[in-house]
Amino acid sequence: MDVATSNRPKVVVVGGGFGGLTVAMSLAKADVEVTILDRHNYHCFQPLLYQVATAELSPGDIAWPIRHVLRKQKNARVLLGKVEAVDVENKRVIADTITLPYDELVLATGATHSYFGHDEWEKSAPGLKRVEDATIIRRRLLLAFERAELSDDPEERERLLTFAIVGAGPTGVEMAGAIIEVARQVMPSEFRRIETRTTRVILIEAGPRVLPAFSEKLSAYTQKSLEEMGVEVMTSTRVTNCDETGVDIEAGRIEAATVIWAAGVVASDAGRWIGAERDNAGRVVVTPDLSVPGHPEIFVIGDTASAKTADGKPIPGIAPAAKQMGAHVADVIASRARGAIPPKAFHYRHQGDFATIGRRSAVMRLPYLEMSGLMAWLVWCVAHIYFLIGARNRLTVAFKWVWDFATFQRGARLITDQRDQL
Amino acid sequence: MDVATSNRPKVVVVGGGFGGLTVAMSLAKADVEVTILDRHNYHCFQPLLYQVATAELSPGDIAWPIRHVLRKQKNARVLLGKVEAVDVENKRVIADTITLPYDELVLATGATHSYFGHDEWEKSAPGLKRVEDATIIRRRLLLAFERAELSDDPEERERLLTFAIVGAGPTGVEMAGAIIEVARQVMPSEFRRIETRTTRVILIEAGPRVLPAFSEKLSAYTQKSLEEMGVEVMTSTRVTNCDETGVDIEAGRIEAATVIWAAGVVASDAGRWIGAERDNAGRVVVTPDLSVPGHPEIFVIGDTASAKTADGKPIPGIAPAAKQMGAHVADVIASRARGAIPPKAFHYRHQGDFATIGRRSAVMRLPYLEMSGLMAWLVWCVAHIYFLIGARNRLTVAFKWVWDFATFQRGARLITDQRDQL
Repeated sequence: MDVATSNRPKVVVVGGGFGGLTVAMSLAKADVEVTILDRHNYHCFQPLLYQVATAELSPGDIAWPIRHVLRKQKNARVLLGKVEAVDVENKRVIADTITLPYDELVLATGATHSYFGHDEWEKSAPGLKRVEDATIIRRRLLLAFERAELSDDPEERERLLTFAIVGAGPTGVEMAGAIIEVARQVMPSEFRRIETRTTRVILIEAGPRVLPAFSEKLSAYTQKSLEEMGVEVMTSTRVTNCDETGVDIEAGRIEAATVIWAAGVVASDAGRWIGAERDNAGRVVVTPDLSVPGHPEIFVIGDTASAKTADGKPIPGIAPAAKQMGAHVADVIASRARGAIPPKAFHYRHQGDFATIGRRSAVMRLPYLEMSGLMAWLVWCVAHIYFLIGARNRLTVAFKWVWDFATFQRGARLITDQRDQL
Repeated sequence: MDVATSNRPKVVVVGGGFGGLTVAMSLAKADVEVTILDRHNYHCFQPLLYQVATAELSPGDIAWPIRHVLRKQKNARVLLGKVEAVDVENKRVIADTITLPYDELVLATGATHSYFGHDEWEKSAPGLKRVEDATIIRRRLLLAFERAELSDDPEERERLLTFAIVGAGPTGVEMAGAIIEVARQVMPSEFRRIETRTTRVILIEAGPRVLPAFSEKLSAYTQKSLEEMGVEVMTSTRVTNCDETGVDIEAGRIEAATVIWAAGVVASDAGRWIGAERDNAGRVVVTPDLSVPGHPEIFVIGDTASAKTADGKPIPGIAPAAKQMGAHVADVIASRARGAIPPKAFHYRHQGDFATIGRRSAVMRLPYLEMSGLMAWLVWCVAHIYFLIGARNRLTVAFKWVWDFATFQRGARLITDQRDQL
């Protein structure tokens, strides 16, 4: 049966990330029709995007077609399209490909990089949110070494072999660790004219310490580990400009051919579509049950929602939070569909924070436990394999990690789509 | 030591495909300096490109950085660059990134699709020679199903679910078999509005039979197998036009949203760079030792060379021929370097022809043996795994084949870089 033609409540979910996919899957047994709309045909496992950007994994290893995930769920369909507007009055989502009427709407459209009002920096300092971002960064990273090998100018070589990463949250830390490893462990034997071990990786953080969401002890451990690997860590350092040849900081200029932005995020446009109140990061201020004030039929979840924990702290923009919100909203919708009283408020349970530092070290902060080093890294590996969708992806990624751990290789070092001309 | 500064003979190899890579590797022990120049940083295993185009494998599975392959070979260096001209008089290769003096030059730059004077067809009928071609075709293939699911117009749906493949050599046959399997075995459970089993795959061949390089018996077997799988095979059918909505044949019009070109090839521009005599496919007419008449220091090999077997037959444009030519040229160069008499003429040994028809069938023609069916397919799988470069790629591809054979999944179904807007 075509799900669009029945008389059951129509639930439209915009976005197939962690939040949106959880809503759809949690509604499998509810008496509703689910339509999930995304501008991409795949769900991307964002926590491992940095490994695509550093040529460890292929995009196909961490992304999976949304319609494949939902293939057995008869009350769900998947459509490709980019939302252009929401007609709140007539309850319709207007996409470039289709117009979808809804009874209940879930907006789970995530976040993108924020350049704090300097959108012109994006061109020279790409961020890392989508598969395309990862392949852009991979191309720049690999091309920098190729160009350095071709250059006869020592200053240009030095600039090409300098990588600046702005922002020392988990993504910045993971990128810095991975790039220094590529330069010191993977590349050296392959170049004849340059010494890739001289590569500089500079991690720039505006706040006083790396990984601000972690404890001071873990921050200090992380900084020390990175420095031992060869990363230059600059805390309390504000970037005042990014361009093609480097970044300006208050203390002067860093010449760097590759700049990667990991400093800030801003919510998707969903708040604007529905004309809702937004906080200064563009997130929609939601009620305790994650619906939009005055619109109990519209929910906003994940990185696009501005929600608070019971004790008033902001809920972080991480995958487990998006999934928990998705499960809650599915519960509300399913309860309404069967005439039951829906749960009133969403309660966030913080499960912990994780960041890898390199090939054999990580930091982990659980509610009653902190860990660092090799054990934390092993837990990180197992957890991330577990949360990947599909046994095929799990086995492929596990194999590649074991292989590359043993051999210091990188398996996806392709410079494709050379729009950055040499 | 920087290989560019010694006094040993400088060998420049343009192209890191099967031919060029074989030259470089075979010169490992010769007293020469090898520079391999390619516009990509990777060697691509072309025989499996069709599996990237049909979402079975990721680009990273069948491509490997050239500099990684040659990392242990001290007399070789790898540079990224696109050749713009060859200064034959002063013995210099001029690329966009660098100018390289040579004592001996090997041109191994391959072939690209030929549209028989209708280059305007390329936009609507992409061919399959490079990694980028494969991801373009993958995107169009997957988008066709997505668009069909979104459409309410039965005629448009039919057009979107029709795939026309022009040319029934091994690539055309392999694409036809793989696409019908995706449509009939992978997709059906995932779509709600369209019945992907109704997909039409039409294989159009100008000659009287499919796989003209094989025996008539194997051609007949292949055609029958394809037809049993659901492919419509049209032999003795000439395409007179390709455009965005289909192809024209002499008997009428085929409405098809996706057209794939597998009909003809033309050599790279290498012949023009050196001002050499070329045949009507643009290939350089070489002497029996594969050098260019009047230029014993310039060799042309692989798909760019027009060479003949001892009994006057043209040498086919396949990987084993390119490798054999590469080994011969390396032998000539190494002999000269040590003052020995180089081998006079290249002798081609035809090892056989191979084509897969689907997930469990192939045809194989060896000098004294013909095979078809499951056994030929198993031999094909083992041979292709064996010839892949790098144990990591071999194991990854082997794992994916076994997995997908057992589950009917496809692992790399990403629509990335949506330049084809919906």
